Amino acid sequence: MSTFDTATVLGVGLLGGSLGLALRKHRIAETIFAWSPSASTREACESASWCDDVFDNPKSACEASDLIFLCGPVDQIPPLMEEVSSACKKTCLITDVGSTKKRICEAGNKIFPPGTGPTFIGSHPMAGSEKSGLRFASADLFQGKTCILTPGEAHLDAAETIGSLWKQVGMNLFQCSPEEHDQLVAHMSHLPHAIAASLSKTLQSSPRKWLESAGEGLKDTTRIAAGDPQLWSAIFLENREAVLGAISSASTVLNEFRDALEHSDRDSLVEFLKHGRSFRKLLEGIEKTDE
Amino acid sequence: MSTFDTATVLGVGLLGGSLGLALRKHRIAETIFAWSPSASTREACESASWCDDVFDNPKSACEASDLIFLCGPVDQIPPLMEEVSSACKKTCLITDVGSTKKRICEAGNKIFPPGTGPTFIGSHPMAGSEKSGLRFASADLFQGKTCILTPGEAHLDAAETIGSLWKQVGMNLFQCSPEEHDQLVAHMSHLPHAIAASLSKTLQSSPRKWLESAGEGLKDTTRIAAGDPQLWSAIFLENREAVLGAISSASTVLNEFRDALEHSDRDSLVEFLKHGRSFRKLLEGIEKTDE
Repeated sequence: MSTFDTATVLGVGLLGGSLGLALRKHRIAETIFAWSPSASTREACESASWCDDVFDNPKSACEASDLIFLCGPVDQIPPLMEEVSSACKKTCLITDVGSTKKRICEAGNKIFPPGTGPTFIGSHPMAGSEKSGLRFASADLFQGKTCILTPGEAHLDAAETIGSLWKQVGMNLFQCSPEEHDQLVAHMSHLPHAIAASLSKTLQSSPRKWLESAGEGLKDTTRIAAGDPQLWSAIFLENREAVLGAISSASTVLNEFRDALEHSDRDSLVEFLKHGRSFRKLLEGIEKTDE
Repeated sequence: MSTFDTATVLGVGLLGGSLGLALRKHRIAETIFAWSPSASTREACESASWCDDVFDNPKSACEASDLIFLCGPVDQIPPLMEEVSSACKKTCLITDVGSTKKRICEAGNKIFPPGTGPTFIGSHPMAGSEKSGLRFASADLFQGKTCILTPGEAHLDAAETIGSLWKQVGMNLFQCSPEEHDQLVAHMSHLPHAIAASLSKTLQSSPRKWLESAGEGLKDTTRIAAGDPQLWSAIFLENREAVLGAISSASTVLNEFRDALEHSDRDSLVEFLKHGRSFRKLLEGIEKTDE
């Protein structure tokens, strides 16, 4: 028996498509509906094993739904929420997969005020990839990854339901405020992306033949730079202030390194690299725990 | 039958140890000698399958040798070359595994002038790892990686011999001048290392609980920051000017990104990220070829 009668996936890219597969695999919803703004994606959904019906407009896709996932780009989640709000059942649970949370949760609280009907809980399943699009979707995309949940003060039951759903698809839960979430991802995800993209762009003008000698180190350091430029621009703009703060910290630190090297200051270089290594070792050793 | 009667590995860390194993595996040398400045490493060599004899001083390790590998840290390779020079047989071939080439090849040409006796050819097998030390050594470390060879104008035969040796252990060859080599590695290897270390150091002050949500992106982007701080400080100092130039380019590019974000300039952000992605895709698609 499934936990929900009907679930709807709004936006069917890598995350939406994987979610559809995972909801089916783990029998979380009996019936799964989908909507995509793209006609070709809607067509692909029609033949997708997990999708029971695909709709031309998001409101129709939500009318019968008990559980709605907003899976569009971060800047399109609030308008989409607004658009479907009048169609949602009063008992409906709504969540999203956006990489930023402050603006999205503010919109959610405004559009669905606590205690008055449909309930919105912000989620951020950190299961992206440098690949994008439905064709890379996988039911196991979420396995072993972390989902950050940012419920407000209200909604304790709903947060528990949404949380256990992410656990069912294999995720570890982490709960914090939308503000802390946005600082966290600015540092742990958006800054690394900006850095990897900058490194890639710096090396773009290198002689082509140099690339043949590129080692695994360079490949790893730049891997996430292959991410979708449109998607990531939206994320950066949505989390602009926090990302600018993180970039500023990183620039200061890179300047420290440059100064030490400029002055051939071996002790400072060693000290600097030891700090970098100790964080990296900490990161490697982290045990993922449910909480 | 082996290509060489006797080979000597001077300095037995990750690269030296892996070289010993690979020389044995591919029957490149009949007898393999080793020297290490560390007593505990010498002891470990005594029980290593590939090592026929281990010496207390580098000169004794070289006296009977036809092929010598200098595997110490980059700043210790020239003094080590100087130290063993008087002990080397006139027919002996000498190479190194240093991550920089200009200073090392200048020293090599001075200590072993072309046409007068032992022949030095600079090599840089790009097969490092964030791990270091003999205990991580593997005969297959070199497999599929690139070795940059920087022979001078002279030494054509010797360069061919050394080159085919690296091919035998599985490497792809790339040949250029020591100067071009140092620019190449400043950009393709040292800059990524400086960037990864800086990112790691920036994130060091993050709340510990944030680390639990670290995704694969952050892990990849910072992986090489786990490298040995002493070893890498020596590399950075040895290739100081070229690395400073590369860091300066990267800083300019990161500032471009920050400016675009500061001004909420979506078009420039998308353009920037497209450039980053196109280099990364190029990197992924590179066919390694022997040349």
